[in-house]
Amino acid sequence: MIILGLDPGLGTTGWGVIRAEGNRLSHVANGQIRTDPSAALPRRLANLYAALVDVIRAERPDGAAVEEVLGNTNAQSTLKLGQARGVVLLASASAGLAVGEYHPSTVKKAVVGTGGAEKRQIQAMMAVLLPGAKLAGPDAADALAVAICHAHHVASAQGMMRRVRTDI
Amino acid sequence: MIILGLDPGLGTTGWGVIRAEGNRLSHVANGQIRTDPSAALPRRLANLYAALVDVIRAERPDGAAVEEVLGNTNAQSTLKLGQARGVVLLASASAGLAVGEYHPSTVKKAVVGTGGAEKRQIQAMMAVLLPGAKLAGPDAADALAVAICHAHHVASAQGMMRRVRTDI
Repeated sequence: MIILGLDPGLGTTGWGVIRAEGNRLSHVANGQIRTDPSAALPRRLANLYAALVDVIRAERPDGAAVEEVLGNTNAQSTLKLGQARGVVLLASASAGLAVGEYHPSTVKKAVVGTGGAEKRQIQAMMAVLLPGAKLAGPDAADALAVAICHAHHVASAQGMMRRVRTDI
Repeated sequence: MIILGLDPGLGTTGWGVIRAEGNRLSHVANGQIRTDPSAALPRRLANLYAALVDVIRAERPDGAAVEEVLGNTNAQSTLKLGQARGVVLLASASAGLAVGEYHPSTVKKAVVGTGGAEKRQIQAMMAVLLPGAKLAGPDAADALAVAICHAHHVASAQGMMRRVRTDI
């Protein structure tokens, strides 16, 4: 199964693709999409969308995953993030991908083992979990983290299915 | 000039199309796009996008306009609005439309004559400004209001251009 993890942002959107075979994970690709802050908002969103469509066409993922967004006291920041996130979710849905959403602490727990992990710990763990992966940046690392989290959930759901079938 | 006004929302997005010939405005069409609250968020955004693409294809506007969004103390509401707004702006940009953004008080002033007008005053003014227009609902009325505001700004910008040319 090929999984696309996404870390949406208007300025920078991180993406990361992994291959999950049972419990074995391997890195496929990662990157960061930047939009020009001097361009008009609709143009930035259109450029983000076009870049995501290219990534999805090139990597042909079977599923996608993003972090849930919690509150932010700055309404303008939340609005910007929301606009980028809407475009990211749309690109996934338009490509026929189901999108898993995970609480940030669930993602951290899946990658570092504790829900309170710091951002740099996530980057450090990528070298362990996905050896050989050259990271495009911190947002790409976060995107790979949510992809790994999704892979764990899919694997444990499949494991549960197998156990249920054995029980019958 | 055909202008598409938009009032984005995840649950309901209002749209309204007017024709502006100099200072003369006339109603073309209006409507409200609803998304199924029981559907997954990416699916709702994809349905909103598809409906907007249909409206733009059918009405062939020359430009679009939306209200600026101010802060909201509820981060989850702001996030939902942002996601819908991102998709609405993307649909406009993808169709090659420039999108004017107007402060809510500018829109109210353009329609009612005062920046502190209430929502129902905007609806009432539509019967005066766009006689014969049957409103699909309050969000469609808000969308027509921002289209009218855009028409005024385009007309006064053109008037200014003409004056500048006469002065030369």
